[in-house]
Amino acid sequence: MGLVVQKYGGSSVADAEGIKRVAKRIVEAKKNGHQVVVVVSAMGDTTDELIDLAEQVSPMPAGREFDMLLTAGERISMALLAMAIKNLGHEAQSFTGSQAGVITDAVHGKARIIDVTPGRIQQSVDSGNIAIVAGFQGVSQDSKDITTLGRGGSDTTAVALAAALNAEVCEIYTDVDGVFTADPRVVKKARKIDWISFEDMLELASSGSKVLLHRCVEYARRYNIPIHVRSSFSGLQGTWVSNEPQGDQPMEQAIISGVAHDTSEAKVTVVGVPDKPGEAATIFRAIADAEINIDMVVQNVSAASTGLTDISFTLPKTEGRKAVEALERTKARVGFDSLRYDDQIAKISLVGAGMKTNPGVTATFFEALSNAGVNIELISTSEIRISVVTRADDVNEAVRAVHSAFGLDTENDEAVVYGGTGR
Amino acid sequence: MGLVVQKYGGSSVADAEGIKRVAKRIVEAKKNGHQVVVVVSAMGDTTDELIDLAEQVSPMPAGREFDMLLTAGERISMALLAMAIKNLGHEAQSFTGSQAGVITDAVHGKARIIDVTPGRIQQSVDSGNIAIVAGFQGVSQDSKDITTLGRGGSDTTAVALAAALNAEVCEIYTDVDGVFTADPRVVKKARKIDWISFEDMLELASSGSKVLLHRCVEYARRYNIPIHVRSSFSGLQGTWVSNEPQGDQPMEQAIISGVAHDTSEAKVTVVGVPDKPGEAATIFRAIADAEINIDMVVQNVSAASTGLTDISFTLPKTEGRKAVEALERTKARVGFDSLRYDDQIAKISLVGAGMKTNPGVTATFFEALSNAGVNIELISTSEIRISVVTRADDVNEAVRAVHSAFGLDTENDEAVVYGGTGR
Repeated sequence: MGLVVQKYGGSSVADAEGIKRVAKRIVEAKKNGHQVVVVVSAMGDTTDELIDLAEQVSPMPAGREFDMLLTAGERISMALLAMAIKNLGHEAQSFTGSQAGVITDAVHGKARIIDVTPGRIQQSVDSGNIAIVAGFQGVSQDSKDITTLGRGGSDTTAVALAAALNAEVCEIYTDVDGVFTADPRVVKKARKIDWISFEDMLELASSGSKVLLHRCVEYARRYNIPIHVRSSFSGLQGTWVSNEPQGDQPMEQAIISGVAHDTSEAKVTVVGVPDKPGEAATIFRAIADAEINIDMVVQNVSAASTGLTDISFTLPKTEGRKAVEALERTKARVGFDSLRYDDQIAKISLVGAGMKTNPGVTATFFEALSNAGVNIELISTSEIRISVVTRADDVNEAVRAVHSAFGLDTENDEAVVYGGTGR
Repeated sequence: MGLVVQKYGGSSVADAEGIKRVAKRIVEAKKNGHQVVVVVSAMGDTTDELIDLAEQVSPMPAGREFDMLLTAGERISMALLAMAIKNLGHEAQSFTGSQAGVITDAVHGKARIIDVTPGRIQQSVDSGNIAIVAGFQGVSQDSKDITTLGRGGSDTTAVALAAALNAEVCEIYTDVDGVFTADPRVVKKARKIDWISFEDMLELASSGSKVLLHRCVEYARRYNIPIHVRSSFSGLQGTWVSNEPQGDQPMEQAIISGVAHDTSEAKVTVVGVPDKPGEAATIFRAIADAEINIDMVVQNVSAASTGLTDISFTLPKTEGRKAVEALERTKARVGFDSLRYDDQIAKISLVGAGMKTNPGVTATFFEALSNAGVNIELISTSEIRISVVTRADDVNEAVRAVHSAFGLDTENDEAVVYGGTGR
C-alpha cells in the first residue's frame, strides 16, 4: 500500500482530547500498512487568539511578523500530535512548513506555493515514522522568511504534499461527513455526495460551498490527486473528489451535484452607462486597480430610447466601500448617472456537469424559485453552473425549493424528469 | 557606538502592555545610536501552558517534539515585539534561533551551543533593522532538528549572540533592579551591587542566587562579554558583571560580594563507611552512574576506635530518591551501616574574592551564625566562598545575621574590620 496524506483541521484538534482522538485514527492508517503524512492546522481558536494579541500591540501588523506569529499555532498542534502518536507506541516526527520543503513566494499572508521539496518528509516516512507537517505555512524562496498561505492554506499544503510525495489520496478530515448536495444547516434533507468530479467541486467551491476551497481543489485537479473529504469524528466514508469515481462508486455522474448559496456578496449597479465601446472597460479597470475581485457581471441590452445601459456586478461585501469609492472617482470620465449598492442579496447556484446534456435544467430551476415566490434579480451561467441573485431574506426558502425540485432530497432518491427545451 | 544585545525575560513581556513597554525601551537604545539585537523569552506563562498541554496528550513527551512545542512560545513573543517596534516607526525583524544561527548539539531539552553563525542578524542590523531573536532555542548541527537550551537558556542565547556579534555589552533585563548582596525578599536591607566580577558572580550563581545562571556567566567570562543586569520596569543602572569595573565604578572590589542561600538541596549521609581506599570512589561512582549532580561533599576523620567514617553530600531534592536507591544497591559492596536522608536543610554561602586576602572572614561568618543561634551541620569552602549547611528553618535568620555582620546592610556602608587570624 502506498502513501496517504491526511489533513486535520483546527476543530478536529481543538483540545488535548481531540489530539488524542486524531492520533488514534492516524495510527489506524499506519497499522493498515500505509505510509502516513499528516498535515495539521492550529488548535481550535489559537489563530484567533494570536490575531487578537497582534491587534493589541499594533493596529497594522507587518506581514512578515504576522506570519511568524501565526505559524506558532501549527507548531503547537503538530508537536502535540507527534507526542500523542508516540504515546501510542508509534514513531512520529513533526516538521514545520519550511522543514517540509514548502517553498513559496514572498507575499506574506497569502503566499503561493512555488515548489515542494519534501526530502525530509520522504526520508522520515521511509524510516518508519509518521510525519506530521504544519499546514498553512511555508518559507519564501528568496528571503527565507516564514510565510503563510492564507485562507484554506492547510488544505492546500496537504494537496501539495500529496502531489510532491505521489500519494494515493489526500484525506481532508473535517467536522462534517463530507460534501453535501446543499448546506445541511439550511436543507435538512441534504444528501452526502459519495463522489464528485473536480470540475463540479470547483464550481461548488466558488459558489459558496465552504467544505473545500477552490484553490485546494484546483491544485488537486492539476496534479490529479484524489481528495477524500471525511469526518474526523466518525469512521464513515466521506466524499471523494477526483477525475473518476473510486472503486464501487457508480460510474455515471449525477446530473446535478448540488445547490450552493452565498450571502457574503454585495451587488453594485452602475446606472445609466453610455452604451459605447470602452465604458465597461473603464469601469472594471477602476475596480481592478483597487485590487478588488469581482464575481458575477451582468449587462442588459440598452434601452433604445436613451442609448444608456446598466451594468451590475457582485463582489465580497468587505470590498464594497472600496469599490464604490473607486467608481465615484471615474464618474466624470464614464459619465454614468448613479451608483446603487445593495448588500442584502444572496447568490444561489445550481452545479452539475450533467446540465450540459440535459435540457430543461434552467427551466426547472426558475420554476422552483417562482413556485417558492422568490424573485430573480440577476442571472449568470457557466457551462456547468447556473447562478441567480435573490433577496438575502429569501435564500433558505430558495435553496430548499431548488434542492427539492431536482430530486436531491434524501427521501426521494429518484431524479426528476426535466420538461421543456434547452436550458 | 557599537552593537548592544538586550535580553528580556518572560515577566517583562507577560502581556501586550509589557511588550509595548519593552518596545519603547528598545527604540530608545536604537535612537541613542546603537545597533540593537534583542533576545526575548516566551510571554509570561506561555511555556507552562504548553507544558500542561503536552502532559495532557502524553505522560512522557519525546524530547524532539517537546522542543518543537516549547519553541512556539518565543515565536509568539518575538513576532509581537517586532510588530510593536514597527508600530513605533522603527524597522524590526524577528528571527528564530535557527535563523539566527544558534547551532547546538542534539540533546533535546538541554542542548549546548556549539556555534553561533549570526550572518542574518548582522545583515539585518547593518540594514538598519532592530533584530529580535528567539531565546532558549537553536537547531541541532547534524539532524537540523529544533532544540531548546534548558533552564536560563535565553540568557545564554543573549550572551552567545553578544559574543558572536562582538557586542559592547549584553543587557539582561529582568523584574529586579540587579544583583543584590542577598535575596531582598529575605534581607530587607540588601544592597544592589553596582559591579561584580565574573568569578564572584559564578560563585553566587552556584550558591543559590537566581538572577543569573552559572552557565550564562561562564559563557560571558569565556568570551569576556560584560553583562549588565537591570530592570525592564525602571530606567536605573543595574549590576555590571565583567572582568573590570566599568566607567566611574570604584576600582577596588568589595571584600564580600554577597550572601546567597539555597533551600533546594537535600543532604545524604552514608554512615559507618570503612575507612579504606576505594570506598568513597564506589559511593560516588554509583551516584554518577545515576546521572546525579552533587554539590558539597564532606568527610570527617574516622573514629580511631571503629575505623569507620561518615560521608555526607548535598544534592538537589529532586534527585534524592534516585540517589538513595542507587546507594542502597551498593550497600553490600561498600559495607556501610546505614543511609540518612534529610531534606530540611539550607545552604548559606558567603562569596567574595576579597576573602582570599582578608583574614578572619570565616571567624566572623561563624560568629554571626552562632550569635543568631544557628547550628552549623556541614562546612565547605572554595577559594572565594564559604558555605555552610543549617536547618532549613534557620535560613532567613542566618542570612540576615551574616549580611549584617559583614556590613552589607544599606544603613551601614562601612565594612567591618575582621579580627582573628586566617580564615
